[in-house]
Amino acid sequence: MSRLEVFGVGGLPEVGRGDDLAGLIAGATDLRDGDVVVVTQKVVSKAEGAMAEVDPDDPRGHRQVVEDESVRVLRRRGDLVISETRHGFVCANAGVDLSNVERGRAALLPEDSDRSARRIRDGLRARAGVEVAVIVSDTFGRPWRRGVTDVAIGCAGIGAILDLRGTADALGREMQVTEVAVVDELAAAAELVMGKADGVPVAVIRGVDRSWFRTGSVRDEVVRPPGEDLFR
Amino acid sequence: MSRLEVFGVGGLPEVGRGDDLAGLIAGATDLRDGDVVVVTQKVVSKAEGAMAEVDPDDPRGHRQVVEDESVRVLRRRGDLVISETRHGFVCANAGVDLSNVERGRAALLPEDSDRSARRIRDGLRARAGVEVAVIVSDTFGRPWRRGVTDVAIGCAGIGAILDLRGTADALGREMQVTEVAVVDELAAAAELVMGKADGVPVAVIRGVDRSWFRTGSVRDEVVRPPGEDLFR
Repeated sequence: MSRLEVFGVGGLPEVGRGDDLAGLIAGATDLRDGDVVVVTQKVVSKAEGAMAEVDPDDPRGHRQVVEDESVRVLRRRGDLVISETRHGFVCANAGVDLSNVERGRAALLPEDSDRSARRIRDGLRARAGVEVAVIVSDTFGRPWRRGVTDVAIGCAGIGAILDLRGTADALGREMQVTEVAVVDELAAAAELVMGKADGVPVAVIRGVDRSWFRTGSVRDEVVRPPGEDLFR
Repeated sequence: MSRLEVFGVGGLPEVGRGDDLAGLIAGATDLRDGDVVVVTQKVVSKAEGAMAEVDPDDPRGHRQVVEDESVRVLRRRGDLVISETRHGFVCANAGVDLSNVERGRAALLPEDSDRSARRIRDGLRARAGVEVAVIVSDTFGRPWRRGVTDVAIGCAGIGAILDLRGTADALGREMQVTEVAVVDELAAAAELVMGKADGVPVAVIRGVDRSWFRTGSVRDEVVRPPGEDLFR
């Protein structure tokens, strides 16, 4: 039975466009082979320059960026827009975020968060000589339940979904619930040690089952195509 | 910065109606004050006798139980029903579950999972002399994203939602994302060490921020009333 350790990595400097995120992470903590490194979208977007200028005194600026980042609006209430991004994520305000970003700027979602995760993973191999999995996480709301949780928007080196189809339950019956979104559960676990206000943008999960490590993709495995979705 | 340990508690016998779940858990692991004990719905339902008889050779039996447990059907596709239970949860098949249950029976959701959590918590105080928090977890799908994750359907001794409203982000701006469903993140973290097929129905999370410990309720804090829900 596995035993996990989950800890935050603090002490990173304020990240800006072009910064070597893998280098900063490798310098801030001792990683081991088999670690899962969860990096929040905010620092990934900052390092990649996925930012927009907004007039801080005019809420229309933020609203326009949200419209620009949306391919389909599902719901609207007051200032809140629930929309689908070009990546296929359905979330509030198309993932455009003003918190923990300097005044006058908004953080957008990375262009391709799986690629972002792959780059960080490659960087950590180069900088620290370790084989790790990387998850890029973001904070999403949910229908029917209050409160937000962190989910994965990109991954590398770990399967996004653990497929238990065909396996038997503890009583020998075929499993009903068969596909577990382990990257989302790992992102959620990481959020518990990050805190939203503390400037801890990276967490490490140690002890994850090695059999989960493979090429993975949130976009290919987790994003549900509209045609198979009952709520779009 | 917090550091969490997450581990599964195995070795429990097959649980039946009337069994002292707290006693079984206390006998299977050494708990400490401040631990968060996550217990899957399945064993809670078995201990509470929240089961229905179904004809194993007739899928209509299962379907009828699902209808009986639903107060509102949101979507239907083939055998899959997404419905709202009388507790206010929106999930597949009203939470009625055939896996890890003996043939001819189906596990229902506990009548009141917050109360179930309180009873286990009180039982652990009595049996092991520890002050812990308890979460009852279940496995739900989500719209827009493939795969299932574990969420909390009941809690005791821990706030379901961590409310950050009014706090400042790392750059001194008021937080945009303000209410974190920590019980759902804890349930997700616990699932990572349980495995769906392994018969590990309990996990412990050690090291959780003590400031999160208070009277809590999934029903009052997490379940979103239909009137404030954009997707019902």
